[in-house]
Amino acid sequence: MTATERAEAPAQAPDATTTTPTATPATMRAAVLVAPRTIAVEERSVPEPGPGEVLVRVEAVGLCGSDVHYFEHGRIGEFVVTGPLVLGHEPGGTVVAHGPVLPHAPAPPPVGQLVAIEPGRPCWSCDRCQSGAYNLCPDMVFYATPPVDGAFCEYVAVPAGLAHPVPEGTSAAVAGMLEPLSVGVWACRKAGVGLLDRVLVTGAGPVGLLALVAARARGARHVAVADLNADRLRVAGDLGADELVDLREGSLADAGVRADVLLECSGAPPALDAGLRALDDAGRAVLIGLGPDEVRIPVAHVQRREISLTGVFRYAGTWPEAAEIARRAGLERLVTHRFGLDEVATALQAPAADPSAVKVVVEPQR
Amino acid sequence: MTATERAEAPAQAPDATTTTPTATPATMRAAVLVAPRTIAVEERSVPEPGPGEVLVRVEAVGLCGSDVHYFEHGRIGEFVVTGPLVLGHEPGGTVVAHGPVLPHAPAPPPVGQLVAIEPGRPCWSCDRCQSGAYNLCPDMVFYATPPVDGAFCEYVAVPAGLAHPVPEGTSAAVAGMLEPLSVGVWACRKAGVGLLDRVLVTGAGPVGLLALVAARARGARHVAVADLNADRLRVAGDLGADELVDLREGSLADAGVRADVLLECSGAPPALDAGLRALDDAGRAVLIGLGPDEVRIPVAHVQRREISLTGVFRYAGTWPEAAEIARRAGLERLVTHRFGLDEVATALQAPAADPSAVKVVVEPQR
Amino acid sequence: MTATERAEAPAQAPDATTTTPTATPATMRAAVLVAPRTIAVEERSVPEPGPGEVLVRVEAVGLCGSDVHYFEHGRIGEFVVTGPLVLGHEPGGTVVAHGPVLPHAPAPPPVGQLVAIEPGRPCWSCDRCQSGAYNLCPDMVFYATPPVDGAFCEYVAVPAGLAHPVPEGTSAAVAGMLEPLSVGVWACRKAGVGLLDRVLVTGAGPVGLLALVAARARGARHVAVADLNADRLRVAGDLGADELVDLREGSLADAGVRADVLLECSGAPPALDAGLRALDDAGRAVLIGLGPDEVRIPVAHVQRREISLTGVFRYAGTWPEAAEIARRAGLERLVTHRFGLDEVATALQAPAADPSAVKVVVEPQR
Amino acid sequence: MTATERAEAPAQAPDATTTTPTATPATMRAAVLVAPRTIAVEERSVPEPGPGEVLVRVEAVGLCGSDVHYFEHGRIGEFVVTGPLVLGHEPGGTVVAHGPVLPHAPAPPPVGQLVAIEPGRPCWSCDRCQSGAYNLCPDMVFYATPPVDGAFCEYVAVPAGLAHPVPEGTSAAVAGMLEPLSVGVWACRKAGVGLLDRVLVTGAGPVGLLALVAARARGARHVAVADLNADRLRVAGDLGADELVDLREGSLADAGVRADVLLECSGAPPALDAGLRALDDAGRAVLIGLGPDEVRIPVAHVQRREISLTGVFRYAGTWPEAAEIARRAGLERLVTHRFGLDEVATALQAPAADPSAVKVVVEPQR
Repeated sequence: MTATERAEAPAQAPDATTTTPTATPATMRAAVLVAPRTIAVEERSVPEPGPGEVLVRVEAVGLCGSDVHYFEHGRIGEFVVTGPLVLGHEPGGTVVAHGPVLPHAPAPPPVGQLVAIEPGRPCWSCDRCQSGAYNLCPDMVFYATPPVDGAFCEYVAVPAGLAHPVPEGTSAAVAGMLEPLSVGVWACRKAGVGLLDRVLVTGAGPVGLLALVAARARGARHVAVADLNADRLRVAGDLGADELVDLREGSLADAGVRADVLLECSGAPPALDAGLRALDDAGRAVLIGLGPDEVRIPVAHVQRREISLTGVFRYAGTWPEAAEIARRAGLERLVTHRFGLDEVATALQAPAADPSAVKVVVEPQR
Repeated sequence: MTATERAEAPAQAPDATTTTPTATPATMRAAVLVAPRTIAVEERSVPEPGPGEVLVRVEAVGLCGSDVHYFEHGRIGEFVVTGPLVLGHEPGGTVVAHGPVLPHAPAPPPVGQLVAIEPGRPCWSCDRCQSGAYNLCPDMVFYATPPVDGAFCEYVAVPAGLAHPVPEGTSAAVAGMLEPLSVGVWACRKAGVGLLDRVLVTGAGPVGLLALVAARARGARHVAVADLNADRLRVAGDLGADELVDLREGSLADAGVRADVLLECSGAPPALDAGLRALDDAGRAVLIGLGPDEVRIPVAHVQRREISLTGVFRYAGTWPEAAEIARRAGLERLVTHRFGLDEVATALQAPAADPSAVKVVVEPQR
Repeated sequence: MTATERAEAPAQAPDATTTTPTATPATMRAAVLVAPRTIAVEERSVPEPGPGEVLVRVEAVGLCGSDVHYFEHGRIGEFVVTGPLVLGHEPGGTVVAHGPVLPHAPAPPPVGQLVAIEPGRPCWSCDRCQSGAYNLCPDMVFYATPPVDGAFCEYVAVPAGLAHPVPEGTSAAVAGMLEPLSVGVWACRKAGVGLLDRVLVTGAGPVGLLALVAARARGARHVAVADLNADRLRVAGDLGADELVDLREGSLADAGVRADVLLECSGAPPALDAGLRALDDAGRAVLIGLGPDEVRIPVAHVQRREISLTGVFRYAGTWPEAAEIARRAGLERLVTHRFGLDEVATALQAPAADPSAVKVVVEPQR
Repeated sequence: MTATERAEAPAQAPDATTTTPTATPATMRAAVLVAPRTIAVEERSVPEPGPGEVLVRVEAVGLCGSDVHYFEHGRIGEFVVTGPLVLGHEPGGTVVAHGPVLPHAPAPPPVGQLVAIEPGRPCWSCDRCQSGAYNLCPDMVFYATPPVDGAFCEYVAVPAGLAHPVPEGTSAAVAGMLEPLSVGVWACRKAGVGLLDRVLVTGAGPVGLLALVAARARGARHVAVADLNADRLRVAGDLGADELVDLREGSLADAGVRADVLLECSGAPPALDAGLRALDDAGRAVLIGLGPDEVRIPVAHVQRREISLTGVFRYAGTWPEAAEIARRAGLERLVTHRFGLDEVATALQAPAADPSAVKVVVEPQR
């Protein structure tokens, strides 16, 4: 029995009372990267939720730099696009049907619930998964990473445990934003950001801005944000940054910034170098932005001051905390552009076309 | 296609090279608790390994106090035996077949591999599971806990990720012992046992002895073991305890024991009281043995000295560490009694009948 | 050479430029507990700051329950008042002179700086002190703990490192409040209070209210406060509690309170029992209020849910964080009563006399 | 009153019973670096132990690479030798007298006690000192770091809390070795070395060998040691290394070394690069050896695998653990060369002169 059938025959489904009266269609539209810089909207079957899965109607999907990179270059490092690929891995939407409910599992989010979808499906079988570090699972299946399709489409089926309910009053666009916010949450956990910390965020793109939001939520004493883009710095100020450093006007050293925590979101080697040098004794640096494979760093400074340096690769167990932060933070204001499925190619070019762009969102139901 | 069929037709199985040439039978014997203090050996179907599961031929199953308790009393607290129940949750055995291998999952342990079976199957969907604290999963399905059958039988089917390969040279009996050893490993983690710690283990039953082994493996400076049973204290000495306190000859206070860590394995309120009072500043106490629901404790002592007190409920992610400890520790000597499936009732009465009993093992293949 | 002389002869002092031009007097008034329930104001010598010390003019001293207890009963447990004793251990005041500055030490807070005084002087020589757990130093010398005099007097001399500068805009009364706030900070550290935690504070006296403030500052998702006193609950609400439980109207269980963290500030055994039962899996309980030496607790609940329980004994390294919290929190509103040195006996009876009393402050300079 | 006088007049000293009957002489010999590569033995006054200090007769002082560096080059980075300097900061010796005992301090180690001397004296007044991270104290006074004299002399006076008693059976040479062993202990703490870790030590000089000993004591599953010097590798094998990698025969990658923890003790950039690349997911790298100020590192590898990298600068609170490790480890075998005070220049050249040198010790009492 398919999920579609189940939605049509609620009287026989165990979770009949929660299923929606309107039937899910058999097909849907999906925006597919069919060639470099070429998106085609195709008609595809609506996926059928398997055991333990829910079917989600996708209502908003945030655009990420990696989507743009695949669109422009067809690859990111070792990940190469070799066939048609649906991009998008920051989806929010509404549960519309349940697959067969597994025994000995928590109740899935009910039909009608707005959820934020965690885009990686780990194996739950290896030591990493079983110890809470599932982001390092070697068998992870991750949205919009070739050859796995992402969420620029009307429906996705996901394991119930990766469809996280969001608080009342959250929009689908903000639900989608829990994904990049999770990166900030994970980085702040790695850095152990606390009340007394002075935090420096280098790079004020969406991830940097959400890292700022995460640091703020943990009560950091002072958050400085550095970038070359005045529009983005203005948004950082709106989000509560204590200090804005416009790098066109001078360096971090010129600005006299000193910090306990560096959240490096630009991927630019000079930002990493200057950011590390801005750290005082026992400082913590977290690499978030992607840059070159090798970078020269001031190791004597790191060693003499017992600074620790690490990086984040995705996140693990961050959605509940991200949802709580979003409930308080008013993130809707980050959305600067909204596009329909037919406009995905335009959406993918919006960040480059408009320097004031912050968060670009695709709304597949438009 | 069933696992049995796959075992019969190895040429067509993807893991054909590792499957055993001897077919798994269709039925097996199981020792079933059919009434209070009554075990019947029944013929049952061999389970079929489902997707992601392996079929294990059970070769040794350690006996636990909880098995004895269900046998004698038909219940443990809120868990009540209401129908036939197979006891036993400390199994070791050999992989004999694979269920359908899941995509995006690690390779299952090969056919022929000796494995230690983790007896609890969490949901992997809730926050607890996803953060590495799966022992607190509210939907856990656990062996030999009514109404879930355990391992006093010839074959079990388990998720591949819960069938942990053991090092070369480990016996099936020791493989089974990784379960109670895991309790000690988990308790030592909770207590943060380190090189400078003086550890006090109260209660030298199998769990207490394995807690001693775990503390020793972490390098604890000094381990004292207290019990009323001279036989068990002798075994503690053989396993490397630095100090043996025979409580028939005097109390912990009489013996002048001072400690940094208490691993309370007896469940006896006086042991908890005296053990807590033996802790110095910043001491850590872990409740392992089960006792009454409420106990009077010296809270002013706890507070003045900033002692921390917690308990363990099963374990999470401990098998790799337990396997490593077992590789070094020589645990075979703990086995004092071995019985076949036909003798399970006798086995369940062995600890009471013989005060020198340490680890009683059921060997279903005899 | 005395500090007074040094202040009179600045040209010869190494820190001459920072000393105040107005001379410190030779004698001062001190409120002394001379007999049970009897305070006498005596004229004493102003202490001379020794090497590495600063002389502080005391401007506000918060009243603590332990002061009241010594006043009423002449003892707290093993600590017995056997001679005249100056009470008061929550002082704030202004640096007025420096003792000889030690080589290889940080610059002391300058003359004129408002400071919060940490009232315990550890040995810095034992393992506890050298590992950051100096609150457990067995040789600690602590204000207003017999036979050590406290701060209900006009001047005190303290090691420079225990005279913590407070942020601009902080009053002397709030500076003094950093001491009880430190208890809350220390308890929240022990409990690891974070963004997702639901915190339950039992007991809304000054320490409970400041524990609420500390939990709030760490971003706790929800803070419930329970007490029998409606006035105090109202203050808790003003300080940002999300839920107020009036225990005259029903129990914690009646109110359906569930929590991740219990900060037990009442010392009442029923609060500890009910508070522990209100904790969910992996909950953390911290004993802050002093109660009986022994209490019956639900250990099976603690064990089954892997709850951890510990207590706080003073604090270590909390002043910087407390100062940061105070900067944000607006604590001045907690002060309900102010008295001069001549009114210390009245001050000590104010909490009992006036149920609306929250923080009672002695101002020695009035 | 001098310590010598106190020793002569025991009836009046509070600790009279512990002072030695034999008088301490008024002068002593000290080996002084008076010019580049020039050591002169001078007659100096025996220091007088101040309040809270003990006088120690120095019996063995290990030689460190930094001593050699000052001898050869007159500077290490920003630290420049500008006047006569006594080198040596790894001293062990016997307490021979007490300075005035401070009130409210633990009893000093008794006269006659063999002690290991911690060579850095922090301020105990700053936040770093008060939080247990005193190695980062900006006002630290450290032996044999210009202009502070070290321990190549017959007597030193040190704070009692930095004169750590060693276990029965420890020699003075091993007491001195607790200093470099502390570096290994501190690094293993930073890395959180545990039972399951595979540890890679790059560089098998004395610090690398003692890092190996520290990792072994924490129960590391597997320790590999890499160096270019076969003599040193042989010693590593004697100390329990599981795997020896002779880098003259091939690289770490050639040898197929994979690790969870890197303890980089060589300071050589290629070792850091190759060592980082040998780390698997969630690996931890600790910089111990000193190298160039800036090094190119594989940051993408660090980021993708969430490796953490930090450095150690001295140590804090490590002597008790180092003493416990030394009690078990049999470190005497590391001593390959012993010299008297008259031979310090020869001692300083021994490591370069003899490739089989491991630990060179100066014995000032010869």
